[in-house]
Amino acid sequence: MHWARWGDPDQAAALPEAARGLVELAFGPAEERPTTPLAEVRVPEPALAADLLAGLRDLVGADHVHIDHETRVRHTRGKSTSDLLRMRAGDGSDAPDAVVRPAGHDEVQALVGWCAEHRVALVPFGGGTSVVGGLTVLREGYAGVVSLDLGRLDALVSVDAESGTAVLQAGVLGPAAEELLGAHGLMLGHFPQSYRYASVGGFAATRSSGQASSGYGRFDALVVGLTVATPIGTLELGSAPASAAGPDLRQLVLGSEGAFGVITSVTVRVRPVPSVKVYDGWRFDSFAAGTAALRALAQSGAAPTVLRLSDENETAINLAQPDQVGGASAGGCLMIAGFEGEPADVEPARVVASARLTRAGGVRDETAGPSWAAGRFHGPYLRDAMLDVGVLVETLETATFWSGLPGLYRAVTAAVTGALADDAPLVLCHVSHVYPTGASLYFTVAAKQRGDGLEQWARAKAAASDAIVAAGATITHHHAVGRDHKPWLAQEIGPVGVEMLRAVKERLDPHGVLNPGVLIP
Amino acid sequence: MHWARWGDPDQAAALPEAARGLVELAFGPAEERPTTPLAEVRVPEPALAADLLAGLRDLVGADHVHIDHETRVRHTRGKSTSDLLRMRAGDGSDAPDAVVRPAGHDEVQALVGWCAEHRVALVPFGGGTSVVGGLTVLREGYAGVVSLDLGRLDALVSVDAESGTAVLQAGVLGPAAEELLGAHGLMLGHFPQSYRYASVGGFAATRSSGQASSGYGRFDALVVGLTVATPIGTLELGSAPASAAGPDLRQLVLGSEGAFGVITSVTVRVRPVPSVKVYDGWRFDSFAAGTAALRALAQSGAAPTVLRLSDENETAINLAQPDQVGGASAGGCLMIAGFEGEPADVEPARVVASARLTRAGGVRDETAGPSWAAGRFHGPYLRDAMLDVGVLVETLETATFWSGLPGLYRAVTAAVTGALADDAPLVLCHVSHVYPTGASLYFTVAAKQRGDGLEQWARAKAAASDAIVAAGATITHHHAVGRDHKPWLAQEIGPVGVEMLRAVKERLDPHGVLNPGVLIP
Repeated sequence: MHWARWGDPDQAAALPEAARGLVELAFGPAEERPTTPLAEVRVPEPALAADLLAGLRDLVGADHVHIDHETRVRHTRGKSTSDLLRMRAGDGSDAPDAVVRPAGHDEVQALVGWCAEHRVALVPFGGGTSVVGGLTVLREGYAGVVSLDLGRLDALVSVDAESGTAVLQAGVLGPAAEELLGAHGLMLGHFPQSYRYASVGGFAATRSSGQASSGYGRFDALVVGLTVATPIGTLELGSAPASAAGPDLRQLVLGSEGAFGVITSVTVRVRPVPSVKVYDGWRFDSFAAGTAALRALAQSGAAPTVLRLSDENETAINLAQPDQVGGASAGGCLMIAGFEGEPADVEPARVVASARLTRAGGVRDETAGPSWAAGRFHGPYLRDAMLDVGVLVETLETATFWSGLPGLYRAVTAAVTGALADDAPLVLCHVSHVYPTGASLYFTVAAKQRGDGLEQWARAKAAASDAIVAAGATITHHHAVGRDHKPWLAQEIGPVGVEMLRAVKERLDPHGVLNPGVLIP
Repeated sequence: MHWARWGDPDQAAALPEAARGLVELAFGPAEERPTTPLAEVRVPEPALAADLLAGLRDLVGADHVHIDHETRVRHTRGKSTSDLLRMRAGDGSDAPDAVVRPAGHDEVQALVGWCAEHRVALVPFGGGTSVVGGLTVLREGYAGVVSLDLGRLDALVSVDAESGTAVLQAGVLGPAAEELLGAHGLMLGHFPQSYRYASVGGFAATRSSGQASSGYGRFDALVVGLTVATPIGTLELGSAPASAAGPDLRQLVLGSEGAFGVITSVTVRVRPVPSVKVYDGWRFDSFAAGTAALRALAQSGAAPTVLRLSDENETAINLAQPDQVGGASAGGCLMIAGFEGEPADVEPARVVASARLTRAGGVRDETAGPSWAAGRFHGPYLRDAMLDVGVLVETLETATFWSGLPGLYRAVTAAVTGALADDAPLVLCHVSHVYPTGASLYFTVAAKQRGDGLEQWARAKAAASDAIVAAGATITHHHAVGRDHKPWLAQEIGPVGVEMLRAVKERLDPHGVLNPGVLIP
């Protein structure tokens, strides 16, 4: 992962030529926005005292404690646009004092206890792809800040093919999970846009949702068991697929963002690798018509594996087909309906869904499906290309019940557009995930960058968040809370809900050393 | 509901003639075990001081505060066999001092606050069908015990047909929920064996699972929102079908058994009333063969709406067909596969599942399906008939992952059989619910009653529970924790899990007045 951009520089897609013209048209002449070289990024003086550093080395071995500039920079914050803007400007003020790479659960458990004992803040680091400030450090009151890189917890621990489950260590990244399971003919099937760089532990800690979640379920629905290192001991959960043995504590760990403990392994549901993967494009006259079709599919119980619907704006610039952004669009609203599985299951499902989509006014687009599939993980690269030329790009997402979806869509669009009114705002949206009772909305926002862009985006984000909460929707469908969503989380779950989180936090982490500053309002 | 038996005496099914012979054969001559008349049940002197009673009357109106003998007896404990044995023996020592029937959320909220202020223990009472000691009172240290009967919270608050959701007050009983929703062409589809007497709030508080849960989902999967009255205020949850806004606090309320607050309404997923309901019987040579077929169905994603499989013992006495218990059995292992929906969906699903079951060695039984459907809620009545003649009957259930199911089955069977070795034990079992990764086992145990039967059952239950925990399975798949499962819950979730529950309990209910003694180890 590049330290100030998304992904692998070799994989980075340049802005298509057609898009360059569009950008100039929309936002005015390109303003080059260069990135401070890595060596010049300003990081704080390391705060950890020598005896504490020695303690860390005792715990995980000297080879696995890093205090060099580059490693510290590479473990600074996540990949939100604000994170990138700060890093491009050379602001490494949130760098950890040290990066430690423990070898397994026992070392993590020892580290967690040690940090509690010595009041050292501990920030779990999986893939580093948080877009909500989930890795941003609170320094005050701590003897130092340690980034706990889970990269060495990279094993497939066990496979239970009969039950269709597997135990993966938390540091396994998306592609490695598929490769390890693939050797057993199995797959996880979790493909968020961050898939290539994010970790299994991060998926769990943030309640990630992937592009195939309509078919395979959100990550929280794939988890049947968890092992967690907390300051008061190890927590192991998951004795059955479902249980009535009190509250489901797994659901309290899922989404806890390292604030209650460090997830060291997850037991996940796995499936046979599908032999067929086919992605169909469909065009609808309007977002409303497409949304009605989505709802019919979701409520029929016959939702495809992949299901997404772009609004008119997103369709117009081909955002669902990253290699064609800015090119001629066939118009309307583009839906992608993807089917994965065995031929005997896929074909009937595709026939049923296609009939339903046709009845709902959909028209097949023969090229859009493969084009989406080819570019499905490329979206974040486009953001870097835009930031390079002075265009601020960021995303935000929410979810609500079907009856509230049109109002939510209008309210968020209006709020963001209003907040960026002087900056040539462009607001695009797609329905990214569907459920029988509702769906998510994923917005992409572009605007002419003003100054460092930070205050500008904070204003737009606050307006959008206020609109989301006012609409009774959730502040995040699959990006987690981090620091960025905390004020609105408090409104969403109310004072009693906040007390529930605080009670667990204070009991499990009485010294408050675990990822301080995130999640808990 | 009868105060010392299951259900409605007019509906009670007598033991079929064939069963009487079987009972004598298995357990020796019938010993008549009469029930103490209601008027002679011994209840404690009411402990609530006059000023506290006056306070309750101020809160809900004098007409809705009951202290008469019969009402107190009818709100004493639940419907486990131990509960029935105690009540039949005239032991009403757990009777509440008063029964209050508030009119809605605000009155419940006021009551909860008042109880906390006056250290009065509050036991939420929906349908009174707990089989795990969920309504058993802890008196010591309290100024009195109040049973909060939710019977007046009996409304369908709202329907959102577009989203497929509805808000039901917590006191709505199973049949009333279907009737209220049926007027809108909708249904809930939650049919546990307690369906006719249990409440929506109870389903949520205990993580109930119904006979159609393979198709419609457990009750916890049907809940999208909750309103809860806690001593520190009202908690409202449910802003979207799914969210990444931190831990899912709904899953902390589900299964909380009134220990964190009183659920006053739930927002549930609803569906159109199906026009077709068809239940097929299938016979397999062995429990192992039938279980393999269940697993194949569950993992194919094509599970029928209803799916259950009796073992050889249960099949031999026709327990899945209550009107034929003790009659001639066609042998093998009986599976029920039921399909509900519209003809266009039901028929293809039935064809696919039938082909799969046939391939797995299943043979259709044309009469067993309708026979199961006719008697599907009658099982508990048979228990009363057995208790009347001195035969102890009780059930227990658990769940685990597929690979552990045979071992769990053997271990529990052996533990119960061993514990009751001198009492002519009969242990029957069926798989009651299936998931892609595992399934539940539901055991029915019969034995010659010795003495009051209480110590005898406690011994068998402890042996079964030890075997369940040792097998790594869950102590309860759909009956909740109550008092009976607490020691094993502590083993299942471990000391850190226990601290999570305690932390929430102490924060939300600092005076410990909410259903004291249940759930929290």
